[in-house]
Amino acid sequence: MRILFIGDIVGRPGRRAIELILPKLIKEQSIDFVIANGENAAGGNGITREITYELFDRGVHVLTMGNHVWDKREIFDFIDSEPRLIRPANYPMGTPGRGWGLFTLPNGKKLAVANFCGRVFLDNLDCPFNGVGPMLESLRGQADYVFVDFHAEATSEKVAFGWHLAGRAAAMVGTHTHVQTADERVLPGGTAYISDAGMTGPRDSVLGVKKEAILRKFITGLPVRFETAAGPLQLNGVIISLGDNGTATAIERVNVIVDP
Amino acid sequence: MRILFIGDIVGRPGRRAIELILPKLIKEQSIDFVIANGENAAGGNGITREITYELFDRGVHVLTMGNHVWDKREIFDFIDSEPRLIRPANYPMGTPGRGWGLFTLPNGKKLAVANFCGRVFLDNLDCPFNGVGPMLESLRGQADYVFVDFHAEATSEKVAFGWHLAGRAAAMVGTHTHVQTADERVLPGGTAYISDAGMTGPRDSVLGVKKEAILRKFITGLPVRFETAAGPLQLNGVIISLGDNGTATAIERVNVIVDP
Amino acid sequence: MRILFIGDIVGRPGRRAIELILPKLIKEQSIDFVIANGENAAGGNGITREITYELFDRGVHVLTMGNHVWDKREIFDFIDSEPRLIRPANYPMGTPGRGWGLFTLPNGKKLAVANFCGRVFLDNLDCPFNGVGPMLESLRGQADYVFVDFHAEATSEKVAFGWHLAGRAAAMVGTHTHVQTADERVLPGGTAYISDAGMTGPRDSVLGVKKEAILRKFITGLPVRFETAAGPLQLNGVIISLGDNGTATAIERVNVIVDP
Amino acid sequence: MRILFIGDIVGRPGRRAIELILPKLIKEQSIDFVIANGENAAGGNGITREITYELFDRGVHVLTMGNHVWDKREIFDFIDSEPRLIRPANYPMGTPGRGWGLFTLPNGKKLAVANFCGRVFLDNLDCPFNGVGPMLESLRGQADYVFVDFHAEATSEKVAFGWHLAGRAAAMVGTHTHVQTADERVLPGGTAYISDAGMTGPRDSVLGVKKEAILRKFITGLPVRFETAAGPLQLNGVIISLGDNGTATAIERVNVIVDP
Ligand SMILES: [Fe+2]
Ligand SMILES: [Fe+2]
Ligand SMILES: [Fe+2]
Ligand SMILES: [Fe+2]
Ligand SMILES: [Fe+2]
Ligand SMILES: [Fe+2]
Ligand SMILES: [Fe+2]
Ligand SMILES: [Fe+2]
Repeated sequence: MRILFIGDIVGRPGRRAIELILPKLIKEQSIDFVIANGENAAGGNGITREITYELFDRGVHVLTMGNHVWDKREIFDFIDSEPRLIRPANYPMGTPGRGWGLFTLPNGKKLAVANFCGRVFLDNLDCPFNGVGPMLESLRGQADYVFVDFHAEATSEKVAFGWHLAGRAAAMVGTHTHVQTADERVLPGGTAYISDAGMTGPRDSVLGVKKEAILRKFITGLPVRFETAAGPLQLNGVIISLGDNGTATAIERVNVIVDP
Repeated sequence: MRILFIGDIVGRPGRRAIELILPKLIKEQSIDFVIANGENAAGGNGITREITYELFDRGVHVLTMGNHVWDKREIFDFIDSEPRLIRPANYPMGTPGRGWGLFTLPNGKKLAVANFCGRVFLDNLDCPFNGVGPMLESLRGQADYVFVDFHAEATSEKVAFGWHLAGRAAAMVGTHTHVQTADERVLPGGTAYISDAGMTGPRDSVLGVKKEAILRKFITGLPVRFETAAGPLQLNGVIISLGDNGTATAIERVNVIVDP
Repeated sequence: MRILFIGDIVGRPGRRAIELILPKLIKEQSIDFVIANGENAAGGNGITREITYELFDRGVHVLTMGNHVWDKREIFDFIDSEPRLIRPANYPMGTPGRGWGLFTLPNGKKLAVANFCGRVFLDNLDCPFNGVGPMLESLRGQADYVFVDFHAEATSEKVAFGWHLAGRAAAMVGTHTHVQTADERVLPGGTAYISDAGMTGPRDSVLGVKKEAILRKFITGLPVRFETAAGPLQLNGVIISLGDNGTATAIERVNVIVDP
Repeated sequence: MRILFIGDIVGRPGRRAIELILPKLIKEQSIDFVIANGENAAGGNGITREITYELFDRGVHVLTMGNHVWDKREIFDFIDSEPRLIRPANYPMGTPGRGWGLFTLPNGKKLAVANFCGRVFLDNLDCPFNGVGPMLESLRGQADYVFVDFHAEATSEKVAFGWHLAGRAAAMVGTHTHVQTADERVLPGGTAYISDAGMTGPRDSVLGVKKEAILRKFITGLPVRFETAAGPLQLNGVIISLGDNGTATAIERVNVIVDP
């Protein structure tokens, strides 16, 4: 089984990249299951119901989120009734939605998809390091494979989380920085790892946003309106090959660029 | 001319990686000039006089630094008399050492090497975005090529700084996160860019530090003693090919792994 | 001469507190000149032209700002033409508005009013410690007294800035935390000092905001809509008595509470 | 019953202030029970066994801590066997020491003393807002009064925590900023509140540290050696008068200054 994970989809350009690139990628790379981070899918901040289903229609099986999960308020209206939309698991008990879900792969095996947020330089949530253990425990016997999207800023926290999961999950894929890293590997114990899967959206930008706006912000310190950028599009992600006994056997980076 | 830049050298394992890998790399890749980030060269924090000259002896021509520049106090004793040791330029006026220097390439051309620190999630220094312009101005007519090591945490600041320098420097290479990114490219205007060159040191670690220590810190919140890790070594960096008129024509990632 | 400085005025309740309390306070306390921090005067975030003039009409002579200075975009339309509206001085050169101004006291003496932002836990601006010296130099011979509103979060930075100005300004008054401190004193050299002047607005609140909203945010981690609170109102501030040779002779806290 | 709480005792000067001021204060103010924050009692960072017992000998009944709790490693040797030394309760399960304790007042009533750390601008611990409820539950029927030292940086978090405890504890006293606030009051429900009790140590300093060192740090950005300051000493704190049914009836600030 080959799982494609797609890095943060940013706004309309990101969705256009999905539309233009995903179908071909699935076919050429013999992809069996598609997970994508959708925290920026609606104009760069959050996600709407319409966009959620647009992405499911285009071939995404499960959406994970991150620190922008609640940016569009309407998510509160549908997150509880959509099990394929996974929010960070380390929000306090009682938070709408769910932090992980069980899905059936084409070969009948069960894949758990989980989402956690890091805390370094980010919001104060419950501890992901101490929270992930009980989750793995509760999945034991139910899930054949566990996939974790760890949405975090600091490389120290991401790399440490990877080692924390080594031998306990099939994959830990980082998101949030919108820049793909080159440290993909299968850790001892069969856990596919990458610090960041990257960003799906406009290539000539600052993390998806118009570069002129961000530059103006850094130079002047004044507020700017963020707009997604135009120009060439990229789809960033990784392909993970699953092995036996809940492990992964390979991870490879994906970076497809098209001119829309 | 081919410039090799080596990502943050961490402690004794990092220096051992230099010893084992650098000579062969220089020969095989026809390297003309070597720049390395040395902010973690002494036990993970700062640099000493002895280590500075050890690295120069092993083939490094210029050392750049970062937020750990002052960690070993003895640097104050020799930084003013060693023009090949470059500290972040955006410290206030009067700071010991220098933020950039001019060096002669084998072909007689002049290469300026500069070091700036980012400010997002890092120390409060002078603005790198507003400080780099005057530096470029003062180098005009003196430097044929400008190389900038931008030592920063946030990808937004790094990518923005790259666009800020596009067409004005031959290269902007990011450092500090100790994880190599996969976004190397030559930006419009001929500026070689990568968000992070990565780390030179122990591979099975958290940014060079023993993974058990960092994991214990994240899990318990208690203080831990940081030690550099053992095991396989990696040399991370990029090779930049210089072109005409102060530009770069290519940038490729380097990731060499050896078992010591 | 007795100067009244009023801590951050928050929204409509804060302006109502000004309306109800200020006139009587000016009379009873024989106030000669009124400075107020207006960064939250418009609904908690920023200031508008209408509110600026409402506050001037109610007896405020000069308004200082802080990190919320640009929250209402319309400030860009009038800040350049209103010399009584002072924004943080340590924005980069070219920023609209001015960071200090010279005003004439009833006795004919000249009072300079300046505004600086701290950087610890706040935005990346130019260094206030290195920026305030040139300002004092440029005011020499022009200003009889210098008043500084230092808008900062960390007590270390505020207390240090007070010592930095001791003997060089008549007063350094901190703002931003919205909680009045009890450390008012005249520092050696005749500089009136307090770490924070406090907040002018609804008393039963969290920094002016409805406490239920803030509590919900801390408990759930979910986004909330911030509204200013209702109930009893407070005017927080300090009264500074000026002496000879640019010094202050006394500073006393003001905390008036009314039921609207 | 009158409880004296003493703000962060900083180093030798802080302990000297205790020695010089506490006995007289206890007598003059008819104090029945003394709690003090000791996180900086050993040279400004952490606490040792010797200093712990020195403070108990001088009249302190219970010591609370904060983010500096583990700075002196020897605390791990004795914290488990000293029930009067309370560390922040919101460390993960299994952390040495305890986050609260039950003590007997002279009138036979039981006083629970708890310590929590805030998270805004501070370390990533468990949520104090969600953690304090279960603690209060477990104390029900055992404690007649609950006293909470909330060690936090941001005023928003402190004020919110006060409202969170209003009617559920006899007192919430803030610590950590080392600057006493002037917002003491008894909240509805009978909860004595102050955002920060202040600092016990050298008055002419930056939070207890030599002001020249801190100023040099802010001006140059270079590392400095922190030493506690000399000169006049202050004891900062609050006196809380307990009422019936677990409430407080009054809170007053204490700020005693002596020349050593
Ligand atoms: Fe994102
Ligand atoms: Fe994110
Ligand atoms: Fe480094
Ligand atoms: Fe660094
Ligand atoms: Fe404010
Ligand atoms: Fe503010
Ligand atoms: Fe403290
Ligand atoms: Fe503290």
